[in-house]
Amino acid sequence: MEQIERIGVSLERKLLSAFDELIGEQGYQNRSEAIRDLIRQQLNTRRVSDPKAEAVAVVYLVYDHHSTKLMEKLTDLQHSCLLQIVCSMHIHLDAHDCMEIIVIRGAVGQINKVAENILSKKGVKLGRVNFITTELDK
Amino acid sequence: MEQIERIGVSLERKLLSAFDELIGEQGYQNRSEAIRDLIRQQLNTRRVSDPKAEAVAVVYLVYDHHSTKLMEKLTDLQHSCLLQIVCSMHIHLDAHDCMEIIVIRGAVGQINKVAENILSKKGVKLGRVNFITTELDK
Amino acid sequence: MEQIERIGVSLERKLLSAFDELIGEQGYQNRSEAIRDLIRQQLNTRRVSDPKAEAVAVVYLVYDHHSTKLMEKLTDLQHSCLLQIVCSMHIHLDAHDCMEIIVIRGAVGQINKVAENILSKKGVKLGRVNFITTELDK
Amino acid sequence: MEQIERIGVSLERKLLSAFDELIGEQGYQNRSEAIRDLIRQQLNTRRVSDPKAEAVAVVYLVYDHHSTKLMEKLTDLQHSCLLQIVCSMHIHLDAHDCMEIIVIRGAVGQINKVAENILSKKGVKLGRVNFITTELDK
Repeated sequence: MEQIERIGVSLERKLLSAFDELIGEQGYQNRSEAIRDLIRQQLNTRRVSDPKAEAVAVVYLVYDHHSTKLMEKLTDLQHSCLLQIVCSMHIHLDAHDCMEIIVIRGAVGQINKVAENILSKKGVKLGRVNFITTELDK
Repeated sequence: MEQIERIGVSLERKLLSAFDELIGEQGYQNRSEAIRDLIRQQLNTRRVSDPKAEAVAVVYLVYDHHSTKLMEKLTDLQHSCLLQIVCSMHIHLDAHDCMEIIVIRGAVGQINKVAENILSKKGVKLGRVNFITTELDK
Repeated sequence: MEQIERIGVSLERKLLSAFDELIGEQGYQNRSEAIRDLIRQQLNTRRVSDPKAEAVAVVYLVYDHHSTKLMEKLTDLQHSCLLQIVCSMHIHLDAHDCMEIIVIRGAVGQINKVAENILSKKGVKLGRVNFITTELDK
Repeated sequence: MEQIERIGVSLERKLLSAFDELIGEQGYQNRSEAIRDLIRQQLNTRRVSDPKAEAVAVVYLVYDHHSTKLMEKLTDLQHSCLLQIVCSMHIHLDAHDCMEIIVIRGAVGQINKVAENILSKKGVKLGRVNFITTELDK
């Protein structure tokens, strides 16, 4: 079981009421949950700025499935770095375009290299990498 | 078939050589491909700033699968806005944490509301929404 | 005087110790101060996503001061929207390049138009707009 | 004199017309200027991800000028790292809040430390650091 601590936070009345309004709109049930999320986001941002940090990355890319052999190249590329790629999902966007979402595990710096290699392929139209560090609260 | 145009671009020699070096590292085969990607990224950023724009969103979230009934709540929530959610993928991160990647189609403003509702749920530790507009070059 | 409230926040022991370590590195004297800053950042991000919100913007741009008449054009442009531009600062970066930092006050949507107009001028090499809403805690 | 090169870029007709429309709205006079700006932005983003890269940073912060001795602390801090801080500008936002814009020159990693030290001070409500590398096209 994770141990729970309770801390006190002091803040201006107006800041608190603006925060309460925001998290109400977002759907939070209580302030602790919202503040934990803010803290985790900041820790995550900080950690993934280190190229050596272990992370999970979500790479998504939009590509034209008519592009010559792009699908084969992407599959080859995923298998050639077999240890890092966890899984992928394929979405049919329209008659031409597909989206591929690829989940990669490894060091931030290495993932960035693989991701650049994927996103620079001819036929890949758009893409981005998002990093997540795990183990923030255990 | 998409029709291809050819345009001329003038730029400083030093800027060109810095660009060539960068896209070489990224793995691009030629400059046109790299410049097309820059243009698409900028168009995409601009379009998804409009809440009424049609888009596809990739929502990813990390959550503790021991959280009481979170998985049921997430599934309920996905079914209750049935028209918009395309598919989802589930990744086991470690003994406690899972990642769920959810692909949603709809207007940017509406997707944002659904995403905030998901990310503010108790037990959801981290998350983000990425938007993609399609039809950039057709 | 601003009224101060005190709230309780519960969070996992590990998350708390990771947070304490981070804010120690950043130089914070106490947790309340760090959490207030996280809350203000999030409120600010939310507010400036509304084109009608009143904000202050910091526009910075790098340009070649040899560019024909760019300085005159920038000054003209600043005066032609006289009500909005608060002040500006000029930094000599090297033999060729200058940086101009321009502070604008107004509605987010209107500032964006002025800023795009500035950043798209021939001779302007790099630039960005950052928005700040005031009155977060008063 | 900087030497100008001319390259050819091929792209889909629809992508080109969407790009022409966007840069028209932004105020660009021609495509080359818009494409040079995209290239410089990407090079800049890449370079400032290296903590050892030399850069100029624009740090802006909002603070309550009633905060005990914050102004003195900020001035002290600026002088104590004398070699790096180029200049600063002070804007009166309202009866309580001021904005300070500080321009720092140095290595990205070192600037980040100074900036965190500034932004974590009690009384500083909001802030951000933006990095610019120079010498992109010379």
